[in-house]
Amino acid sequence: MPEASTQPREGASTTEEIITLCRRRGFVFQSSEIYGGLNGFFDYGPLGTELRRNIKDAWWQDMVHRRDDIVGVDCSILMHPRVWEASGHVEGFSDPLVDCRESKMRYRADQLFFAAVTVDGRTLGYVSVLEDGNMQPEAEEKAGELKRKEAAQGTLGPVELRPYTEATPDEQPLVPSPATGKPGSLTPPRNFNLMFETHVGALRDASSVSYLRPETAQGIFAEFRNIVDTGRVKVPFGIAQVGRSFRNEITPRNFIFRSREFEQMEMEYFIPPDEDLWPRIHREWIDWCHQWLVSIGLRPELLEEDVHPEDKLAHYSRACTDLTFRYPFGTQELWGIAARGDFDLRRHQEFSGKSMEYFDEDRKAKYIPHVIEPAVGVDRIFLAVLCSAYAIDEIGGETRTVLRLHPRLAPYKAAVLPLVKNKPPLVERARALYHRLREEVPVFFDQSGAIGRRYRRQDEIGTPYCLTVDFETVEADGSVTLRDRDTCEQERVTEDEAVERVVAAARRRSPLPSPAA
Amino acid sequence: MPEASTQPREGASTTEEIITLCRRRGFVFQSSEIYGGLNGFFDYGPLGTELRRNIKDAWWQDMVHRRDDIVGVDCSILMHPRVWEASGHVEGFSDPLVDCRESKMRYRADQLFFAAVTVDGRTLGYVSVLEDGNMQPEAEEKAGELKRKEAAQGTLGPVELRPYTEATPDEQPLVPSPATGKPGSLTPPRNFNLMFETHVGALRDASSVSYLRPETAQGIFAEFRNIVDTGRVKVPFGIAQVGRSFRNEITPRNFIFRSREFEQMEMEYFIPPDEDLWPRIHREWIDWCHQWLVSIGLRPELLEEDVHPEDKLAHYSRACTDLTFRYPFGTQELWGIAARGDFDLRRHQEFSGKSMEYFDEDRKAKYIPHVIEPAVGVDRIFLAVLCSAYAIDEIGGETRTVLRLHPRLAPYKAAVLPLVKNKPPLVERARALYHRLREEVPVFFDQSGAIGRRYRRQDEIGTPYCLTVDFETVEADGSVTLRDRDTCEQERVTEDEAVERVVAAARRRSPLPSPAA
Repeated sequence: MPEASTQPREGASTTEEIITLCRRRGFVFQSSEIYGGLNGFFDYGPLGTELRRNIKDAWWQDMVHRRDDIVGVDCSILMHPRVWEASGHVEGFSDPLVDCRESKMRYRADQLFFAAVTVDGRTLGYVSVLEDGNMQPEAEEKAGELKRKEAAQGTLGPVELRPYTEATPDEQPLVPSPATGKPGSLTPPRNFNLMFETHVGALRDASSVSYLRPETAQGIFAEFRNIVDTGRVKVPFGIAQVGRSFRNEITPRNFIFRSREFEQMEMEYFIPPDEDLWPRIHREWIDWCHQWLVSIGLRPELLEEDVHPEDKLAHYSRACTDLTFRYPFGTQELWGIAARGDFDLRRHQEFSGKSMEYFDEDRKAKYIPHVIEPAVGVDRIFLAVLCSAYAIDEIGGETRTVLRLHPRLAPYKAAVLPLVKNKPPLVERARALYHRLREEVPVFFDQSGAIGRRYRRQDEIGTPYCLTVDFETVEADGSVTLRDRDTCEQERVTEDEAVERVVAAARRRSPLPSPAA
Repeated sequence: MPEASTQPREGASTTEEIITLCRRRGFVFQSSEIYGGLNGFFDYGPLGTELRRNIKDAWWQDMVHRRDDIVGVDCSILMHPRVWEASGHVEGFSDPLVDCRESKMRYRADQLFFAAVTVDGRTLGYVSVLEDGNMQPEAEEKAGELKRKEAAQGTLGPVELRPYTEATPDEQPLVPSPATGKPGSLTPPRNFNLMFETHVGALRDASSVSYLRPETAQGIFAEFRNIVDTGRVKVPFGIAQVGRSFRNEITPRNFIFRSREFEQMEMEYFIPPDEDLWPRIHREWIDWCHQWLVSIGLRPELLEEDVHPEDKLAHYSRACTDLTFRYPFGTQELWGIAARGDFDLRRHQEFSGKSMEYFDEDRKAKYIPHVIEPAVGVDRIFLAVLCSAYAIDEIGGETRTVLRLHPRLAPYKAAVLPLVKNKPPLVERARALYHRLREEVPVFFDQSGAIGRRYRRQDEIGTPYCLTVDFETVEADGSVTLRDRDTCEQERVTEDEAVERVVAAARRRSPLPSPAA
C-alpha cells in the first residue's frame, strides 16, 4: 500500500493549530490544569519532555562535547542576593506596570497604547488598545465610536497611538482603562521588578531575601574564577549552562513563548579585550547559532537577523544581534547574541572584592576578559521547531498532519508495528525487533488499529521511520518494511539494515563552523 | 612504561577527601562562593556537570527508554498552591524548630539532644549536644564538667540523651543552648514549614502565594489525568520525572547530601488496587532500584535495605523500604521505595473536583490506581558514586588517586594524548583521532606535561581510557597505545579498534529486570 505524498501546505501553521496538537498528543499542558491552571506556567507531557530533552542534548553535544574550547556548569537557581545587585537586576530588572483601580486589572504600560481623538483639531477624548497586530484599525474604530457618541461634526483627525509610558501626568487621567472603557482609573506607570523573591532560612526579613534567578548567565560569571582556577581552560574559551529561569512577567503570552518559568541555554565566551577582536568573534557566533538552528530543522526562510541600533543598547553593550523567528503570532526574538564587554566580570569584581583578572600566558599579560553571550530559550526553540516541522499534506486523497522533525529531535526514532495483532509469530518477531532497537534509541511499539491509522499517528508525532513486520518477514526472507515519514515511501530491507538506518539517522549531526581561533 | 597497579585502599574515602577532590578538580563548588557562599546551595563545575548529566541520562534511558511501560513528564517548579494543600505539604511539611533567643541561632529540635545530669539520684542540671556520631561521649564529658563545676560529691548517674522535641515545658527552660552553654534562652519547638514561598503576579498577598516544589512527585499526580487521556498508557504504567526541588532545611549538612536545592528522579508506578498485588510490585521495584545502583558502579557492600517499621509509616502508606548507602559520614537513605496506596490521586480528586478514576478495559472496571513510588536524589547518587569510585593505590611505588567510575558515567570517555607536544606529526595525528572520537562521545585532548602525569590527571577524574599517539603510530603501523584506567595495562591497538572499544564501553548498559507484568 504505497502512499502518494504531496507538498506540505507552506507556512500554514497557526498558533491555534500548534497548541491543539500539543494538547492532543501530550506535548504541552497548562501547569496545574486540574486546579484551573497557573498563568504563565506549563508542563511538558511525555512527547514534549522527549523533544525538549533532545533539543537540550543536541545543543550540549554541539556546544560543549564537539568543541574543545567550551566547558559546562550547573549552578543553583537560588544564589546569594549580592549576585543580583552586582548584575544590576535588583535595581533595574523591571517592567512598567499600570493598574486599573476600578477593575484591579494590571497591564504592562509599554503594551498599553492610547491616542487622542480629534475632530477638526479639537480633542474629544482618548481611546486605548492593547498591543496587537490589529491595534491601529481597532483604535480607529473606537475613535469613530467616540465621535458618534459625542455627536461631533467635522473631520476625524489621524489616530496616533503612543505607549502609555509616554503619557504625560495630564494625559494619564484621561486615558480610558481597557477593562472598563472609562477614563480616570489608570494609575501612573511604576517599575515592577520581575524577579521572584523568597526567603532562605527560618527568618523572614531583608537579610534572608533571595531571588529565583531571572537568567542563568550570572551563575556563569560568579563561577568564572573557580573554573579558571580548577579547569584547564585558556582564553578564548566559553562556559555553557542549561537550566530553569524565572521572570514574574506582568502579561505572560503567546503560549510557551513568554512564560514565567522557562529554560535557558546560555554560553559566555571569554576573549581578550582587544578592540578589534570582538566584532569578528561576535559575527562568528551569530553565524554559528544561525547554522545550528538550521541544522536541527528550523526553516531557514523563517529566520532573520535583527541588529539592535546603537542608541538602543545598554551602556555597557558593544553590540547585540537577535536571530528572530517568524512565529504564527509574529516575528520575535529567538536567540540574542550580545557583545557585553567586561561589564559583568568587572561588576562582580567590584561587588565581591575578588579579582576577576585572567593571566594570559601567551601574552604575558593580565586582563579582565570581554565576553560574547549567545543566549536562547529552550521553550522558544521548542515552539520554532514545531512551527517549522508542522505540515498538512495529502496522501492518497486523505489529509494527514505530519511533524517533519529532524531525526535527532524526534521523540521516537522509529515505531515497530506488526501488520496484524492476532498472529503471534508476527507479534513476537516485531517485539524482538523492538527490544533490539530500544537498547540503542527510543522507539515505540504499536499493534492496535489499521496499519494506515498507525502510520498517521506516528506521522503526527514526528517519528521518522515505521518498521512493519508482515507475513513476508516471518514466512519468506525476514525483511521488514521501512516507511519514511516525509516521502511515505516504503522499502523492504533486512532487519539489520533497518536498525542501522534508524540508529544512523538518530545520531546524525551536521557539520558546524569551527571554534573561533 | 607499563605501570604495576595494586588493590585500592578499601573504604578509605572520607567526606573530607571527597570534598577536596570535588573542589580541586572542579566537580562541585559552594554556590556564590565569591560572596561568601549561600548555606545549603551548590554549583556543579565542568566535570561535576558532566557526571550529573550522565547519572540523569542513565536513569532516564533505563527507566523510560528501555521500558515500554513508563513515560516521562517535565512539570513547572512553581505550581498552583492547591497542589500543596491536596498533597498535605501546606499543613504538614515541617520540621520542629527551636530558637536560641540570646545567640539568634536556630536548631532542628530533633537534632538537639539533652540529658539530665544526676549525682546519687539528685538532678544537678542539664547538658545539651547536637546530633552527631560522637554525641554520647560528648554529653558525658559535659556532665562530668558540670559535676566538677558544682563540686558535687557522689556518683554520676547515666547520661540519657533525649531529643529536645521530647522536653516537657518544665524542662525546656533548663536545657542549655548549644550556642551559649547556658539555660534559659531556648524556645519551645515550633513547626517550621520547609517550603520556600514566593508570590506570582504583581500582587503580594495570600491570593498570590506559590511554593517552590519540595518534591517532583506531585507534578506527576497533577498530570495523571492528562497523560491517561492523551498518552497511550495502560495500567500498570509509570510516569517519571527528573527535576529540581527545594526545601528550606533548618540545618543543611553533609556536603551535597542534605542541601536546600537538589535534583530528584521520581517515578510513580500506577497499579490496580488489588490488595495482593502491591507487595509483589513493591518488591520488584526495590530489586530494580538496587540492581540499577549496582549497574552504574555503586559498591554492593555499601548498599543495604532499611524497612520502615509499620508503626512509623504515615497513615496512608502501606510500606516503605529505603535503599541506604554507607557514606563516610554514616549510613543514610539513598532511595526510598514507597507503597502509597491511592492517597495522592484521591486527595487531588477531592481538592480539584476532577475524577482520577481510570477505566481498565481488560477488567471492565473503574478504579483509582494505587501507586508504588521509587524516589531518589541525583546529588545523593552523585556522592555515592564518588565514594564508591574513589580509591588510592600504588603504581610503580607512586601513590595515585583514581576514580573508578563506570564508563557510562565518566565525564570523558577517553583522553587522547600525543606522547610529546613538539613533534607536529604526532600532535596532528592525535588531534585527528581526537576529532574523530568527539563526534561519538565526550573526549579530552591533552598535550602538556610528562605522559605519566597526564595519565594521573585522567585517573583522578575517572577517564576510563587514555589513547597515546607515539612515534610508532606515525612511523610504523599506525597503532596507538590504549591504557586502561583500572589495571593501568597498556595495549597497542589500531585506531579503529581504539575508537570502537571506547565507544562500546561508553554505551554499554547492563541488563535490568523486566517490567512488572
